[in-house]
Amino acid sequence: MDLPSHIINEIVARALAEDVGTGDVTSMAAVPADVRADAAFVLREPAVICGLPVVHAVFTALDPALELHVLLPEGAHAEAGTTIATVSGPARGLLSGERVALNLLQRMCGIATLTARYVEAVSGTKARILDTRKTTPGLRALEKYAVRVGGGTNHRFALYDGVMLKDNHLAILAAQGFSLADVVRRVRASVGPMVRVEVEVENVGQAAVAAAAGADMILLDNMSPDELRAAVAAIAGRAIAEASGGITLASIRAVAESGVDFISVGALTHSARALDIGLDM
Amino acid sequence: MDLPSHIINEIVARALAEDVGTGDVTSMAAVPADVRADAAFVLREPAVICGLPVVHAVFTALDPALELHVLLPEGAHAEAGTTIATVSGPARGLLSGERVALNLLQRMCGIATLTARYVEAVSGTKARILDTRKTTPGLRALEKYAVRVGGGTNHRFALYDGVMLKDNHLAILAAQGFSLADVVRRVRASVGPMVRVEVEVENVGQAAVAAAAGADMILLDNMSPDELRAAVAAIAGRAIAEASGGITLASIRAVAESGVDFISVGALTHSARALDIGLDM
Amino acid sequence: MDLPSHIINEIVARALAEDVGTGDVTSMAAVPADVRADAAFVLREPAVICGLPVVHAVFTALDPALELHVLLPEGAHAEAGTTIATVSGPARGLLSGERVALNLLQRMCGIATLTARYVEAVSGTKARILDTRKTTPGLRALEKYAVRVGGGTNHRFALYDGVMLKDNHLAILAAQGFSLADVVRRVRASVGPMVRVEVEVENVGQAAVAAAAGADMILLDNMSPDELRAAVAAIAGRAIAEASGGITLASIRAVAESGVDFISVGALTHSARALDIGLDM
Amino acid sequence: MDLPSHIINEIVARALAEDVGTGDVTSMAAVPADVRADAAFVLREPAVICGLPVVHAVFTALDPALELHVLLPEGAHAEAGTTIATVSGPARGLLSGERVALNLLQRMCGIATLTARYVEAVSGTKARILDTRKTTPGLRALEKYAVRVGGGTNHRFALYDGVMLKDNHLAILAAQGFSLADVVRRVRASVGPMVRVEVEVENVGQAAVAAAAGADMILLDNMSPDELRAAVAAIAGRAIAEASGGITLASIRAVAESGVDFISVGALTHSARALDIGLDM
Amino acid sequence: MDLPSHIINEIVARALAEDVGTGDVTSMAAVPADVRADAAFVLREPAVICGLPVVHAVFTALDPALELHVLLPEGAHAEAGTTIATVSGPARGLLSGERVALNLLQRMCGIATLTARYVEAVSGTKARILDTRKTTPGLRALEKYAVRVGGGTNHRFALYDGVMLKDNHLAILAAQGFSLADVVRRVRASVGPMVRVEVEVENVGQAAVAAAAGADMILLDNMSPDELRAAVAAIAGRAIAEASGGITLASIRAVAESGVDFISVGALTHSARALDIGLDM
Amino acid sequence: MDLPSHIINEIVARALAEDVGTGDVTSMAAVPADVRADAAFVLREPAVICGLPVVHAVFTALDPALELHVLLPEGAHAEAGTTIATVSGPARGLLSGERVALNLLQRMCGIATLTARYVEAVSGTKARILDTRKTTPGLRALEKYAVRVGGGTNHRFALYDGVMLKDNHLAILAAQGFSLADVVRRVRASVGPMVRVEVEVENVGQAAVAAAAGADMILLDNMSPDELRAAVAAIAGRAIAEASGGITLASIRAVAESGVDFISVGALTHSARALDIGLDM
Repeated sequence: MDLPSHIINEIVARALAEDVGTGDVTSMAAVPADVRADAAFVLREPAVICGLPVVHAVFTALDPALELHVLLPEGAHAEAGTTIATVSGPARGLLSGERVALNLLQRMCGIATLTARYVEAVSGTKARILDTRKTTPGLRALEKYAVRVGGGTNHRFALYDGVMLKDNHLAILAAQGFSLADVVRRVRASVGPMVRVEVEVENVGQAAVAAAAGADMILLDNMSPDELRAAVAAIAGRAIAEASGGITLASIRAVAESGVDFISVGALTHSARALDIGLDM
Repeated sequence: MDLPSHIINEIVARALAEDVGTGDVTSMAAVPADVRADAAFVLREPAVICGLPVVHAVFTALDPALELHVLLPEGAHAEAGTTIATVSGPARGLLSGERVALNLLQRMCGIATLTARYVEAVSGTKARILDTRKTTPGLRALEKYAVRVGGGTNHRFALYDGVMLKDNHLAILAAQGFSLADVVRRVRASVGPMVRVEVEVENVGQAAVAAAAGADMILLDNMSPDELRAAVAAIAGRAIAEASGGITLASIRAVAESGVDFISVGALTHSARALDIGLDM
Repeated sequence: MDLPSHIINEIVARALAEDVGTGDVTSMAAVPADVRADAAFVLREPAVICGLPVVHAVFTALDPALELHVLLPEGAHAEAGTTIATVSGPARGLLSGERVALNLLQRMCGIATLTARYVEAVSGTKARILDTRKTTPGLRALEKYAVRVGGGTNHRFALYDGVMLKDNHLAILAAQGFSLADVVRRVRASVGPMVRVEVEVENVGQAAVAAAAGADMILLDNMSPDELRAAVAAIAGRAIAEASGGITLASIRAVAESGVDFISVGALTHSARALDIGLDM
Repeated sequence: MDLPSHIINEIVARALAEDVGTGDVTSMAAVPADVRADAAFVLREPAVICGLPVVHAVFTALDPALELHVLLPEGAHAEAGTTIATVSGPARGLLSGERVALNLLQRMCGIATLTARYVEAVSGTKARILDTRKTTPGLRALEKYAVRVGGGTNHRFALYDGVMLKDNHLAILAAQGFSLADVVRRVRASVGPMVRVEVEVENVGQAAVAAAAGADMILLDNMSPDELRAAVAAIAGRAIAEASGGITLASIRAVAESGVDFISVGALTHSARALDIGLDM
Repeated sequence: MDLPSHIINEIVARALAEDVGTGDVTSMAAVPADVRADAAFVLREPAVICGLPVVHAVFTALDPALELHVLLPEGAHAEAGTTIATVSGPARGLLSGERVALNLLQRMCGIATLTARYVEAVSGTKARILDTRKTTPGLRALEKYAVRVGGGTNHRFALYDGVMLKDNHLAILAAQGFSLADVVRRVRASVGPMVRVEVEVENVGQAAVAAAAGADMILLDNMSPDELRAAVAAIAGRAIAEASGGITLASIRAVAESGVDFISVGALTHSARALDIGLDM
Repeated sequence: MDLPSHIINEIVARALAEDVGTGDVTSMAAVPADVRADAAFVLREPAVICGLPVVHAVFTALDPALELHVLLPEGAHAEAGTTIATVSGPARGLLSGERVALNLLQRMCGIATLTARYVEAVSGTKARILDTRKTTPGLRALEKYAVRVGGGTNHRFALYDGVMLKDNHLAILAAQGFSLADVVRRVRASVGPMVRVEVEVENVGQAAVAAAAGADMILLDNMSPDELRAAVAAIAGRAIAEASGGITLASIRAVAESGVDFISVGALTHSARALDIGLDM
């Protein structure tokens, strides 16, 4: 599986501690311990499937006797009405885990499905879809996995694994008398060789300066397709070109056709809707 | 403050471990240690303010020398363009915390603001707005707090602090030969006196049965305003009446006018948009 | 089982870390690794059995090859001399776990057994026995489970799952000019519908006020049976009546016959004796 | 202070997480945030004071603005009616911490007070009072500290810091053909020089054998004063002599006069009563 | 400071829990609580200073009243006999922290000092010194920080922040029929744009293939200076060239003069000696 | 096994979290999920084997389908070229765990092997080899286990399980007017009977004083063989004699022949080299 099990287990343990806590009083009071049940996860709308390994971990943590039967692989596209997995076993554990399993599954499917729509929108261009750090605190590994499952590509994971000089960094440094080129050169020289350096720029001129100064990647912020085209030309292959800033499904095709290498979309994670998925007995 | 500090601290520590990890390579490489900066949290759209105590904890955890000046109290309504807080101090810590602070603040303002719209929509009726357990795993305490800040009321927090007999429980128990009235009576007798028992029903007849059997609260699922009115009459004050199921801002007024006591809206937490808030230097 | 496994596992892990730590030097030095042993948990006095699932977790955590054979179900009443479970397997693990297993088992049996005596003392009346929050820090879930196993009923679990306005709250609020009726009404209106509100009162008049103000439950503190009878009459079914305060096995029957719904007994958890149970090889 | 702060803080954090959890709904709903209060910890019965540093940690964790004024040092003997500490500050935090503070303080005072009674009972003899490992899982460090505060001496802390060959070890090893002398010699030779080796014996002959084989300390189990006197004579200063087994306040003086060096009393921790202490506003 | 405080605090807390545990019995028994002391950290051999922020955290965690006065900045070169910091305050905490502080300081100074020797050995060439993942489990962040303090550069931090195709990956993939060029191309295309891809090669031909296939960085394993020179020529600036494998202080100058960009040295962390530093009262 | 599994599991989990973190990007990108591999741990130099139970835990944590076949027991002496274990299963997990497994194994074999050399150097004398607290923070339990596997004996584990009055304690106490004899007597009287008291002395006279005052063990610091002989004579069997301070493989034989009971060697843990062990596919 593409997610380390220790990450899944930690997130699931925390979610169950939060929801089950000292015990599911409803199931304990209402359902005799020996009652068994079967249930099916059924899509109420079309989806790219994502999160079933996490659902598996939820039920296993509650009761090892619960069995999840996965019917579709991660990344599959399926229509409304499709049963994507079934779960069978002791009814108490099944009922205790329903909400946590759905909360995680609906969110992950939501992200994968939205990502796939963006990927589809740029198909045929060379542009690839990137995520951002606008993720849910505590769930980033799950959400970036969902982006991959939906066909997207991960930008840096966090502050520790890549340099991104953003507008606020440059504003502060400009106030200290550092030029853009200086900053890029100094940072490129000081970080390790496995760390990529990206710079956010606001116009074509800055893009040319950043490329010349040795940036590995340049974020072209809030530019029109024409500006993007000019920036790509100015970068001239010396750095990877990324478009970013308020790009929607309606506008992304034109952005992609400008020739940029990547387009980052914060909405993939910060605005994905929880998909409607039911657990039917 | 309305949130225990141990909960805020735990969520903030986890979010910073996730994002800062072994170190913010950008700030360390680009920004000299003695540079200071000032920044302002500015609304890009109208909002109900929620989450500034959490933002405070983010910056304090990164560098106790960072000072957050809160300009508006939790729950205040403010227009686009309003500066709601400023932060001053060592630039490195300020830049390292920007994204985590915004991720949490935008989400919490989003929930409070959406809640306030639902509360407004039912104003003048006796109906109050409830949240659900459709929250983000690991962030439920923050999200339920945001509902309160927005003027809503919390339903049970989790599986451990209230009984809710839902459709799936009743289906499993019906298959074992238990009638609705039996289940309610048995559960009401077995749980402690401080635990409320709610039952989900699908029609007026079931509502009457549940009330007679001693349910403290009855969830009227997916009923039309007319059905709700009939159900409220059938319950006749013996239990609290809650409407639920696919209720939107467009439909909620009619629901509220049916006479129910509460209306629960999953969308408050599972579909709230992250509000657009900037951190301007 | 009635206790979530994540709670049992966390308590057992902590207890073993505390007692075994970096290793049981006695077993490692004295007992060859391949020696096996069999042992029996034997009651040295009559008991209500409680805690064997926890004992099972202790031995499994130390060595999965250890097998616990449970001979009596939780809640069974047994005489002195009864073997309630046997354990077999590698002697080192068995010896390492002996003390932790007994410390937990003796405490849990002690609570269940004491609870059963209180339950027996009120049999034939409508009064049920409640526990309190006077539990051992870190072990509340185990101790409240033991109360249930002994036939008692759980009061609220903690500060988060129920409102209890006690003498100290009311004293502070009175000093601020709030009347009892005001406090009850305001609190009842502000908390969610799944939260019960209980008020502690000291005389019949206050009981009547609290009931009229909408309290769900009223704690009648330190009243004589006659006062209790009067208070029950004054409440007149509008709220649940709980007697509390210094009630002993000697006095409880008279309290129960006063017509209260519940009697809470702090002694169930704060004064239960560890029962005498041996582990015989 | 005699307890490492990391241990106090961990126990207090766990206790507050257990009791406050997602928030004290009573204080939040009933008490305005700006109300302040003063309260006094008052003994309802005579006590040896123990646990005020832990009480301090409870209130500080809830609200750093709460101030605890300690009026008597740890270990002081005080009469019923004595105010031992006062606490002042925001009423919400004070009320939220009351129960946890009392649960810990009453338990710790209970152990210290009971220990002091045993110490008093043997005064004038050379015997010192020891505790055992019959402590509350998770609270051993607090409880062994309370024994010291009461004038007792700690036996080994846990399985990792001392060898104790008990009846069950010896029974298992006897079944493997190892004699008592063999076991003692082999263990004494294999463990490090900073580890003491104690052996449990049941009669005078075994005591002599254990002393001759090099045991550092000998536990004389369930012997009469006359047998103890004979055992002490047989040990002849080659090892430390400890009496143990069913010793009560009534019987301990005679035990102490037998000439043993130490007397261990499991009841100090497993049967100490929570003392009656109130928090008066 | 260049290390996030949450990392320092976590490592220090773990080290103190390991060493102090339930209490420093020596200091508690021997040193009255009010005794104060002053002590100086004195080099017994020349060193590059590294680790004083960690030492500060050790003493602060034990007793906030302990004050550390740092006399030399991180990275300073100092001779034997130099006092690099002093610590003053309550003697108990000072004595309890001595060993943990020295264990961490000696290790960090050892790494920084060894790194500085390698850096010095290549001065005047363009080669920079890299570390590896051959670090102490649990202390990697401290050790990679020490490398930076000594003038070295960090390679990737861990498995998550950079691709390194090593001999074992390539052997397994070759057995599956994948050519070196195929693997590089496929991996380069599938990972995100902020992730660098490095390949380990064993000869000049492979280096040329890897560069042509799009590797960002090439590890030239165990090559002679002449081979390295040829490999650098073959790479022709298309990728970063790193020499690795059994390089010592004696051999590194010749390696550096071959024209490689980086030289990685596992010995920096896996074989650095703890420097001799004393804490003199 | 001689190490509690909870300790192994905690160290392994932390090491994997540190190195694998959010995922091994190389294995995920390069190696198809269904590829299997076999590999062998091969000694590149002679070694005393130590750490294979820890290696087992590493692979099991990554993927339960990985199987480790151990070919030599802990403590075995083996020559360069020996295969000590093989591992088979899914290639991704095998590759992800390689570095962590080697980092731990090489360190543990290094300590066991160095210890065995010291043990061999004193063979035929009565002296036994002791470790110290100069261990790697967070790994002490593993390192002290490796000392035992190499034939050494453990000194106290930490500050909590034995008294050691060192030069710094005595200097501080001398400044308060306490004589050596006073300190030893007072400490011996105040700590429990299972705690040994050791004193560090610098000359023969102090050794005699310490022994007379009741020290259980005396550390003879930095003495010549002749001084040690005199100190042993002065102690005259009243306490255990330990030599310590700058003892090397070259000098230890003469130290051992002086008649001391134990020789402690900090180098066992603070200067052991990571042995060269490869994982060959």
